[in-house]
Amino acid sequence: MRSRSVTGVLLRMSSLFLRTLREDPADAEVASHRLLVRAGYIRRVASGGFAWLPLGLRVLRKVEAVIREEMDAIGAQEVHFPALLPREPYEASGRWKDYGDSLFRLKDRRGADHLLAPTHEELFTLLVKDLYSSYKDLPLWLYQVQTKYRDEARPRAGLLRGREFVMKDSYSFDVDDAGLAASYERHRAAYVRIFDRLGLDYVMVSAMSGAMGGSRSEEFILPSPNGEDTFVRSPGGYAANVEAVTTVAPQAVSYDDAPTARVVDTPDTPTIATLVAVLTERFPREDRPWVASDTLKNVVLMLRRPDGTDEPLVVGVPGDRDVDMKRLAAQVEPAIARPFVDADFAAYPALVKGYVGPQALGADKGLRYLVDPRVAPGTPWTTGADEPGRHVVDLVCGRDFTPDGTIEAAEVRAGDPAPDGSGPLELARGIEIGHIFQLGRRYAEVLDLRVLDEQGKRVVVTMGSYGIGVSRAVAAVAESTYDELGLCWPAAVAPADVHLLVAGKDGNARTVADRLAQELSEAGHTVLYDDRARVSAGVKFADAELLGIPLIVTAGRRVVDGLVEFRVRRTGEQAELAPADVLARVRELAAR
Amino acid sequence: MRSRSVTGVLLRMSSLFLRTLREDPADAEVASHRLLVRAGYIRRVASGGFAWLPLGLRVLRKVEAVIREEMDAIGAQEVHFPALLPREPYEASGRWKDYGDSLFRLKDRRGADHLLAPTHEELFTLLVKDLYSSYKDLPLWLYQVQTKYRDEARPRAGLLRGREFVMKDSYSFDVDDAGLAASYERHRAAYVRIFDRLGLDYVMVSAMSGAMGGSRSEEFILPSPNGEDTFVRSPGGYAANVEAVTTVAPQAVSYDDAPTARVVDTPDTPTIATLVAVLTERFPREDRPWVASDTLKNVVLMLRRPDGTDEPLVVGVPGDRDVDMKRLAAQVEPAIARPFVDADFAAYPALVKGYVGPQALGADKGLRYLVDPRVAPGTPWTTGADEPGRHVVDLVCGRDFTPDGTIEAAEVRAGDPAPDGSGPLELARGIEIGHIFQLGRRYAEVLDLRVLDEQGKRVVVTMGSYGIGVSRAVAAVAESTYDELGLCWPAAVAPADVHLLVAGKDGNARTVADRLAQELSEAGHTVLYDDRARVSAGVKFADAELLGIPLIVTAGRRVVDGLVEFRVRRTGEQAELAPADVLARVRELAAR
Repeated sequence: MRSRSVTGVLLRMSSLFLRTLREDPADAEVASHRLLVRAGYIRRVASGGFAWLPLGLRVLRKVEAVIREEMDAIGAQEVHFPALLPREPYEASGRWKDYGDSLFRLKDRRGADHLLAPTHEELFTLLVKDLYSSYKDLPLWLYQVQTKYRDEARPRAGLLRGREFVMKDSYSFDVDDAGLAASYERHRAAYVRIFDRLGLDYVMVSAMSGAMGGSRSEEFILPSPNGEDTFVRSPGGYAANVEAVTTVAPQAVSYDDAPTARVVDTPDTPTIATLVAVLTERFPREDRPWVASDTLKNVVLMLRRPDGTDEPLVVGVPGDRDVDMKRLAAQVEPAIARPFVDADFAAYPALVKGYVGPQALGADKGLRYLVDPRVAPGTPWTTGADEPGRHVVDLVCGRDFTPDGTIEAAEVRAGDPAPDGSGPLELARGIEIGHIFQLGRRYAEVLDLRVLDEQGKRVVVTMGSYGIGVSRAVAAVAESTYDELGLCWPAAVAPADVHLLVAGKDGNARTVADRLAQELSEAGHTVLYDDRARVSAGVKFADAELLGIPLIVTAGRRVVDGLVEFRVRRTGEQAELAPADVLARVRELAAR
Repeated sequence: MRSRSVTGVLLRMSSLFLRTLREDPADAEVASHRLLVRAGYIRRVASGGFAWLPLGLRVLRKVEAVIREEMDAIGAQEVHFPALLPREPYEASGRWKDYGDSLFRLKDRRGADHLLAPTHEELFTLLVKDLYSSYKDLPLWLYQVQTKYRDEARPRAGLLRGREFVMKDSYSFDVDDAGLAASYERHRAAYVRIFDRLGLDYVMVSAMSGAMGGSRSEEFILPSPNGEDTFVRSPGGYAANVEAVTTVAPQAVSYDDAPTARVVDTPDTPTIATLVAVLTERFPREDRPWVASDTLKNVVLMLRRPDGTDEPLVVGVPGDRDVDMKRLAAQVEPAIARPFVDADFAAYPALVKGYVGPQALGADKGLRYLVDPRVAPGTPWTTGADEPGRHVVDLVCGRDFTPDGTIEAAEVRAGDPAPDGSGPLELARGIEIGHIFQLGRRYAEVLDLRVLDEQGKRVVVTMGSYGIGVSRAVAAVAESTYDELGLCWPAAVAPADVHLLVAGKDGNARTVADRLAQELSEAGHTVLYDDRARVSAGVKFADAELLGIPLIVTAGRRVVDGLVEFRVRRTGEQAELAPADVLARVRELAAR
């Protein structure tokens, strides 16, 4: 329960709706989830759905406030849309289908299709179209802090991946590409300030823009072993998510001196390992041993297009690498890829399972064939000969076969070179906390958002889209600051400035603490006051560590000597102070 | 676009995301809807779903802030629940079915049933059960400001009846009835303060608690000809919604001297009017003419219970009144009533359509029979004789027939006596802006929320539920304050304190206004500054009236004389002031 003074807030634990738990919740896989539940900040009420308890809600509001301040500071204007929306605009943009099972769909009492919006590109586009018509109205930056829905296949990790979550989504509207680039930079700078203020030690990585389409795109990722996103970085500062990494392709080489391709018998070699073994045994190389990367593996997939039709796709990668289905998915979406099954092979008799070779492939044969960039013109490969038990050696790309193009779908490995020459890549995991991208004209085009330009010509508006997972940011801050004792909030988002507690049964300690609670809250600080009467000092101390308020003031044993204990939660620094000096010390340390 | 000073906000209309409309939106039936759309506060984006534009969102936030302050002041604690919830708790409470078509239901990707919550009784109950276990933890008051969903059959009147809307819902938890009564009073007092601060001239009416069950219940209603709720009030201060009005029943009278009932031929009298005509012609009364209220009309209905089974119900009302289906609905819910159709009559051959009499009725005959309280013991009636073309005269209640009970389902009319003797009722229409009610133990019972009482016995907790339509309150304030020129906000919820505008092309006016905008916003006021360059003074003045900011300051023609115009939007009072005196005047008039 709180009582208000001038501007501060006094939260009394004797009546605060809070129960800390000694035990970890059974379903909590990551520290932030475990601790936020144990410390009584959030409580699971549905799969991927959490109730915010009073302390948690205070943190959420503080994160929201930081975001709003920085969005307002760049001149973005806040609006608010419904979450429940009709199908039509999402049908027009293609997202009604493209989102697949991730979209919550429902019907109203009249049978009309609706959805719970995952993001609001379509609605913002239509709203601007509704109100604005001239280049003079642009640039325009709009944002909202709003509840979003996504039917996650596997909601997990507490607030990190829920089905209902709070997002700040903003959208920029510009008349030309230069304007979009400027709007993008402006948001980028605001995001840097926001995450800096939240104390998050993020990495900015180049990103594919996923289902959104568009061009330039970056993610803000908090490195964390519990993160769901894999990204790469180099010593020289390159960073990208795995979907966005581009392969350093070898220079095209001349094949004038290359030997002629020849078909060889390679019985029982359905895998690359068996193939290398047979080659080594029967056809040893003179220069060096055969290795898997001498072979070309052709992986046959079936794509399901959004309109429900199927199309085969063959992806050729060096034999030492697998196709990374996540990288592939980013390349082929909105289509969805699945492995070829026997029935598919039956429908395409030219494909000999385990021995598929480039010569049977190609768009002209109804089998689109895309290769890894390492399969460069002039490079020789050992690959399937389209007959069981046979392979072809020295099949040269550009001489003996011509793929339909390249695709970034091979797995990325630690040690691969960064595309910008900044050194070998390392792989890391992280939590995506923000995402900015240049949508371009995709939505404006389909929803017909045009304005008159300076020449009086109607031009399609170009847009950017910028998101921050607000509830996820709460978890991200918890995840990056907790220690073995519990949560450990930075002052900017802590639910209170000071955790004040009475330890021991000295009546005088209570009086001193009461007075301090009053004084601090009247001075404008938020005080979490552990005034519980029948709770032991040990429990109170443990709770104070678990709850993670930045400053802990204890009125205990030393009150008889005119002293209280002052402790900085993060560093563990302790000092004894006269009660009269506490306010000055709090002022000095608390972020106001 | 805004720029921040110390605490004030400067909103420049040259870049504010706002377009006022000259024309009324085609679908707007009520003034608040019409004006909020025309003034660019909200914009329809779905059936019953609105986007909040920057000025509208500012009003919404101010209303929320007032509500939060008063809820916090009584010691209620804020939490926040998801809107998307699993079916199970609502199944347990019966509301999954009881809500009928008004509930948005959906399935997730695994086929599990979910709903978009209309209110959160079940979840609050479960949360408290999760955390608390002793009477020492109570009383407890929790609230949230949250987005709610209701699949309205006919979303209308803008924010007054939407399908997605913002509500403040709170819940009280007490160990006994006395506690509930105290919690109820506390919320009641907070609601009085909230609506007073919002400047709403409400009426508190006794209410049925609808699908919620429970005992004491009151609605806060803003009288308005556009309101959807009908309520009654008396000169002596009685007020109730129509569902809650109780009938002043006549005293039971002795029937010792009453004549014997007799069946008479009344050919072609399917209606009360034809019956009275035939009685008057064939069987004139000696004391006075026959009137409709001498007759007893038996209305046959079919109830559909939540479990899907049907049960007939016959309602007997004096012939001069109809059954009020809304009053009836409140009495029979969660069952739903519909008129008897021919197929129903065929299934109950004892019922002679148009001539149904009490003697064929009664629970023992499978036809539950409830009468209006005016059908008191000893009163004689002319009613159906269960044969075509025949009625029975002087059928005395309690002597010749005994109903299964009484029901408050007859229409209420202007002039009916108030049940508390405070005079004749008048009927009025209004907008429900708040609703408080004692839920009692219904939810705690089914969801097993018990605590140990002082004697160590586990007792069921008793609850109250208290709602305010937050987005609706925005419309209610608009509805009760607008005038012929436009919106006319009270200072407490106005999106800005001052509307400042430059009129005319005097460069000096612009300089004066720029300086005032700076000065007022730096002093902590929110200033809506019409700094648009190519807009005429006439358009600016009209926009200022339409937007309805309480104070309007114009730098125009008189700037050459060192004066600006100061105007109070509500009263139209005008004065000319030196720019240097404006801040003091704004301070004096603006609610801080």
